Amino acid sequence: MRSVQDHLAAVLAAVGPVAPLDVALHDAVGCILAADLVARRDLPPVPVAERDGYAVASHETAGAGYESTLSLPVAHDVRAGGMPLRLAPGQSVRISSGGPLPLGADAVVPIEETDRGAARFAMQRPAVAGQHVRAPGADVRTGEVVLPAGTRLGARQLALAAAMGHGRLHVHPTPRVVLLSVGDELVEPGAVRPAEGTVFEADGHALEAAVRDAGASPVRVGIVSDDRSALREALEDQLVRADLVVVTGGLSELVGDTVKDVLATLGSVRLDQVAMTPGFRHGFGTVGAELGRDREVPVFALQGHPVAAQVSFEVFVRPALRAMAGHVELYRPSVAAQATHGWSSPVGLRQFVPATVLGSPDEGYRVTPLGDPGSPTVSALALANALAVVGEQDATVHAGQVIHCLVLEG
Amino acid sequence: MRSVQDHLAAVLAAVGPVAPLDVALHDAVGCILAADLVARRDLPPVPVAERDGYAVASHETAGAGYESTLSLPVAHDVRAGGMPLRLAPGQSVRISSGGPLPLGADAVVPIEETDRGAARFAMQRPAVAGQHVRAPGADVRTGEVVLPAGTRLGARQLALAAAMGHGRLHVHPTPRVVLLSVGDELVEPGAVRPAEGTVFEADGHALEAAVRDAGASPVRVGIVSDDRSALREALEDQLVRADLVVVTGGLSELVGDTVKDVLATLGSVRLDQVAMTPGFRHGFGTVGAELGRDREVPVFALQGHPVAAQVSFEVFVRPALRAMAGHVELYRPSVAAQATHGWSSPVGLRQFVPATVLGSPDEGYRVTPLGDPGSPTVSALALANALAVVGEQDATVHAGQVIHCLVLEG
Repeated sequence: MRSVQDHLAAVLAAVGPVAPLDVALHDAVGCILAADLVARRDLPPVPVAERDGYAVASHETAGAGYESTLSLPVAHDVRAGGMPLRLAPGQSVRISSGGPLPLGADAVVPIEETDRGAARFAMQRPAVAGQHVRAPGADVRTGEVVLPAGTRLGARQLALAAAMGHGRLHVHPTPRVVLLSVGDELVEPGAVRPAEGTVFEADGHALEAAVRDAGASPVRVGIVSDDRSALREALEDQLVRADLVVVTGGLSELVGDTVKDVLATLGSVRLDQVAMTPGFRHGFGTVGAELGRDREVPVFALQGHPVAAQVSFEVFVRPALRAMAGHVELYRPSVAAQATHGWSSPVGLRQFVPATVLGSPDEGYRVTPLGDPGSPTVSALALANALAVVGEQDATVHAGQVIHCLVLEG
Repeated sequence: MRSVQDHLAAVLAAVGPVAPLDVALHDAVGCILAADLVARRDLPPVPVAERDGYAVASHETAGAGYESTLSLPVAHDVRAGGMPLRLAPGQSVRISSGGPLPLGADAVVPIEETDRGAARFAMQRPAVAGQHVRAPGADVRTGEVVLPAGTRLGARQLALAAAMGHGRLHVHPTPRVVLLSVGDELVEPGAVRPAEGTVFEADGHALEAAVRDAGASPVRVGIVSDDRSALREALEDQLVRADLVVVTGGLSELVGDTVKDVLATLGSVRLDQVAMTPGFRHGFGTVGAELGRDREVPVFALQGHPVAAQVSFEVFVRPALRAMAGHVELYRPSVAAQATHGWSSPVGLRQFVPATVLGSPDEGYRVTPLGDPGSPTVSALALANALAVVGEQDATVHAGQVIHCLVLEG
């Protein structure tokens, strides 16, 4: 039997960031930048107005004020995107925010501080050189590293990349995760009159959401038969588009469960008993080489019960996906919380218990298990906001004991 | 001039949750449940094995133990999905996790606690009635409200819904947000030799990511000309698929900026000056009725500068989208943080400053502005993890002053 820690180490040793690729901005959302992003030119490239108003030579506005009637003739309108003009002495131009300042102008008088004149305009006070002007390079200077490799690309980082003119970015692409749910007993939810003994397929639906939440791209294949050739064919078909494969179900030692045998023919996958509950049997390895593929694809085989599958996903698959996506931080946040009451836990196994964690950093946290910790249910997990983690050496948790909890939300 | 608070109140008064719809599980990810989800049958519907092993009648195992040689003949294999069998007296069946317990059996002996025999099996100790058996209704009982209306549907909630056989869920669908970037000066990032004076389109790319991050579905239309008929046509075309429209750019008072006029012909949109910086001009209203549409679509018109557009999105559009998606919590988390040094702020305007917030709940938080708070840049915003919010009455922030900060990450 392998410890959780050893199994996780083996998993993380076998996966690495997906090979970097230039992708369009649209596809870079949520990805990790694989190389420093360097500015190719100054931003803005020329001095631009920061406000709608009038561009002026500030030294020509010295007489302006409430007691004065100074006004300047307006020669042109300059909009963003216009070509830079030359300001004739004693003149002004109307300019909109983002518009290039005319040569000879050094300040912008905001329209709200004027009489909004079209042919001439009057201002309330003298302009100060540089006011409401964004100098060339004020945002970014040519050659500057604006975003270092390792940056996660969200809205604000994409804004910067786009504003600098980058249409594609060099990133670790989002891992594509193929999900297969194995078992002749499975039927799709929504089936009108499921036969007695059939089980609704839940793992693929749940893991599709979990994969997306982890920042990867799920491909839910759906239900695959236990039949060896059907399972093998489905796996072979899907390897083309997979960076990672997760198979759920079909892991028991009974004759009809074929996942272990089929994976063995496709690559190097070992089946372990991992010292945890729920989720005792774990297949992990790589496939592809036996098929003549140029790259090995990591494969997880998880037990089919939805709680086992989801806990195993949280503990092993999610960190692997984060590593493949190039993230440095692989794990969910965790808190230490006092148990509101006690429960028992199997010695020798790490126990993961759906639980509610309440509290705050100031007042501390309290953790309450949902349902029977020895037999966690899919409904308890749906209502939980955390997994309480009880160590292998503990036979009981006593009320007041401080328990390490993985926070699933927030 | 309208206050930030009044403008936000007007926005939130004009939007409401998108009308509920039955959607497939795949499309329900991240949505808010619009009605209580009620169990239609017990889960599991029959007693099932919780472990791989042997199903037995516990009273027939009383003699088992290390000193004993008790073994039972194995009659059948029962896999998940099989029909329930009847256990003959004195016999056992091999059963896999999830398999229905035969009539007459009341316990499962895990395979790890046996000799794994095929024709007969020997066990280490007597079985206790009910051990490793999941009773009917142990997860969910018929008629029980398993997920209340208002629940956000993530992986664990979808697992429960799927396991109960629900193929579709009644949710507030994800709002579809159409993004138009207006301006003849705009060119797509990646353009090889952009003409002098052109500006790279950044708002649509940034807001596409921001909309997705807010849990809504973006449709980035891209660059639209200032030409009135082109802009009107683009808006009319997009209204069909929009629950909300965000237009960026084209808001100045100069002749070429047409957004205000075109929106006026399509519906009831007012242009306000909102007492904030960046992002001073704000269009908001609804369009559709003038076009004979059966529903009014909310429209935001935001200033084109990427920092103004993104700050305005954070302050007004994001809460509106959250409300439309059915969320109760509309706002980003915020923290109170001590300013590491001072800066000035325009009296009468609420100032939003890209900033770095560091610290922890225990030791408190510190906030440092990035760049010039009076002229926030797209690069500062890209490096920020928060927006420091300075009140309308403050002319300065002094070092040590406690500032309210919107946390943009984490």
